[in-house]
Amino acid sequence: MSKSQIQALLEKALEGDLRAISRLISIVEFPAEVDPSTIETIMRELMKRGGKAHVIGVTGAPGVGKSTLISKLIAYYRKKLYKVAVIGIDPSSPFTLGSFMGNRVRMQIHSSDPGVFIRSMATRGVRGGLSASTVLVLEALDGLGFDKIIVESVGAGQTDIDIINISHTVLNLVMPGAGDEIQALKAGLMEIGDIYVVNKADKPEAEITLKQVIDVLNYESFIRSSGWRPRAVKVSAVMGMGIDDLATLIEEHVEHLRKSGYFQEVVKKRRIYGSFIVIKHIIESRVEEIFSSSNKHILEMLLRGEIDPYTASLQILSEVLGGRR
Amino acid sequence: MSKSQIQALLEKALEGDLRAISRLISIVEFPAEVDPSTIETIMRELMKRGGKAHVIGVTGAPGVGKSTLISKLIAYYRKKLYKVAVIGIDPSSPFTLGSFMGNRVRMQIHSSDPGVFIRSMATRGVRGGLSASTVLVLEALDGLGFDKIIVESVGAGQTDIDIINISHTVLNLVMPGAGDEIQALKAGLMEIGDIYVVNKADKPEAEITLKQVIDVLNYESFIRSSGWRPRAVKVSAVMGMGIDDLATLIEEHVEHLRKSGYFQEVVKKRRIYGSFIVIKHIIESRVEEIFSSSNKHILEMLLRGEIDPYTASLQILSEVLGGRR
Repeated sequence: MSKSQIQALLEKALEGDLRAISRLISIVEFPAEVDPSTIETIMRELMKRGGKAHVIGVTGAPGVGKSTLISKLIAYYRKKLYKVAVIGIDPSSPFTLGSFMGNRVRMQIHSSDPGVFIRSMATRGVRGGLSASTVLVLEALDGLGFDKIIVESVGAGQTDIDIINISHTVLNLVMPGAGDEIQALKAGLMEIGDIYVVNKADKPEAEITLKQVIDVLNYESFIRSSGWRPRAVKVSAVMGMGIDDLATLIEEHVEHLRKSGYFQEVVKKRRIYGSFIVIKHIIESRVEEIFSSSNKHILEMLLRGEIDPYTASLQILSEVLGGRR
Repeated sequence: MSKSQIQALLEKALEGDLRAISRLISIVEFPAEVDPSTIETIMRELMKRGGKAHVIGVTGAPGVGKSTLISKLIAYYRKKLYKVAVIGIDPSSPFTLGSFMGNRVRMQIHSSDPGVFIRSMATRGVRGGLSASTVLVLEALDGLGFDKIIVESVGAGQTDIDIINISHTVLNLVMPGAGDEIQALKAGLMEIGDIYVVNKADKPEAEITLKQVIDVLNYESFIRSSGWRPRAVKVSAVMGMGIDDLATLIEEHVEHLRKSGYFQEVVKKRRIYGSFIVIKHIIESRVEEIFSSSNKHILEMLLRGEIDPYTASLQILSEVLGGRR
C-alpha cells in the first residue's frame, strides 16, 4: 500500500466509514503480513488521537452469558449515543452480527451507522493469553474514537490475566449456584473483577450466589489499587433485567478512575503491557527457529540427555543475545 | 558449593537419602541463585540416568479432589513398591505432609523411606504456566530414579497446557453434575486428558456425569496422537472407591505408550518443551529490564502515544538481537 492510499483509508476511517474501519483493523490485525512502516504510519496517526476510550473487559466461564450481556450493553450505550466497539476473543462464542446483536442495532449498522464495530479475534491456543493483534486492534479502535471498547475474554488462563492489564473496568460474570467459583474466589483464583455480575437472575439460586459473592468481597476486603472496592450485582441478560443498574455502576467505576487519575494510568500500563505481549510473541515465534537452525547440536544433546534444559537455554541465549547476557 | 561437595550430595541422593534429595531439589528449584556450573554438574549426572519415570499429570477445577486422589494413588503405588514423587503446583491446595498423606505413608516417610518425595512449587502468577523450576525439578526427580512422578496442576490456563506437554498420562478430574465442564469439553476447551476421572462417585449425579463424558468422548472421537482413545472412569477418592481400577487403567495407558514407542517421544518432547519454558522465562524476566534501561526513550514515546507497541517492540528487538532479526 502506498503512503497516499494509507492516508486516504485513515481519513475515511476517522470520518467513521465502517468499511474503511474494517479494512484498517484487518491490516493492524496481521502486522507481520505488511511492511512495518505501514503499521507505523497507521498506528502513529491513531495513537496520537487515542487514550480516551473506556475499555471494559468481560470475563466468566463458558456458558455464563457473556455474549448476551454484551449485546444488551451495546444497545444501552447506543441509546446514549456512545460509539461502541467489541473485541471478541472467545473461540467458543464467535461473534456474528446475526446471532449476536438485537435487531435494532443491526438495522443501524445496515444503514451504515458507524456507532458499532465488532471484531472476533483468535487467541493464542484458546487460553494462552492475548495475541499481539488484540493489543494493536485495541489501540487502533481507541484512536478511531470509539467511546466504549468491550473486550470479551475466553474466561480462563493467561487471557484473563491479560484482560485485567488492558481494561479500565473488568466485569466478572458468575453463574447462579456456582459453588466452585465461590471457592475459587475465596482462594484468590478469581480475584479479577471491578464488578461481579451474577447473571441469570431469574434462577432461584441467583440471590444466594449474589449474597455469597458479596460476603467473600466483604470478608476478603479486596481493594483495587485505584481505591475501588469491587461491587456485585445481579442481572438477567436474556430478560434485560438489571442492565441499567449495571451500566450505572460501570459509569460510577469509570468516574472513580477519572477522579483518582487512574484512568490515564491504565492507558499507560496498557501500552507498556501491550509491548510486553508483542515482544513475547515475536521472541516466542523465534524460539523454535533458534533451536532448529543454528543450535542443532544443543537440541541433539538435549534429546540424548547430555545437557539439561537450563544449561541449554543459557547457551542458546548467549548465542542469540551476544554480549548482552 | 565445591565440586566434591556436589558430588557427595549427588551420591547420597542417588542412594535414596531423602534429606540429600530434598537439598538437591532445592538447589535445582532456584537455578538463578547458584553458579550455572553447579546446575550443569548436577543436571548432567541426573539427566543421563533419566528418561525412565512415568510422569502423570493431574488436572481439574479447584475443589474437585485432586489432592485426595493423589494421596490414594501414592498409597497404591507404595504397595507395589514403586518410588513416587509429587510436584504440587496448585497454590490453593499446598501440599503438607500432615494434611496431604495417609497415616501409613506418613509413617514410612518418618522412618525415612526414600520411596515418597513431595515438593510444592510456585507457578507463575497462578495460571500463567509452569515455571522453569518445575521443568528442572521434574528432570532431576526422573534422574533420581522415581518410578512415578505425579504433577498436580492448578487446573486452569497455561499451566494445564504445559502439563499435557510434559506428562505421559494426563488425568482430568471432573465434578459430578458439572454441566459447564461437559459444555467446555464439547467446545474443545477441555480436550486434555488421557483418562477422565469423575470423582465423588458417591454423589448420585456421578453416574450421569460419567455417561455424559463418555458420550462426548465417543461423539467427538478424540484420539491422541499415540493412537490412545481417552477413557472415563468414576472414583471416590475420599472413600477409596475405584482407585484400583483407575490405577489399572493408568498402567494400560503407559503400556500402550511403551508399545507404540510414544513413551520415549514424550520424554524428548518434554525436554525440548522444557527448554522453551526456560528460555521464555529468562527472556521475559529481561523484557522489563530491556525497556527500563537502554530503551528509556522508546518507553517514553510509548507513554506519550508517539509510538505504537508493535513498532516499539521491533525497535527494541533489533537493538537486543542485533543483526539477527
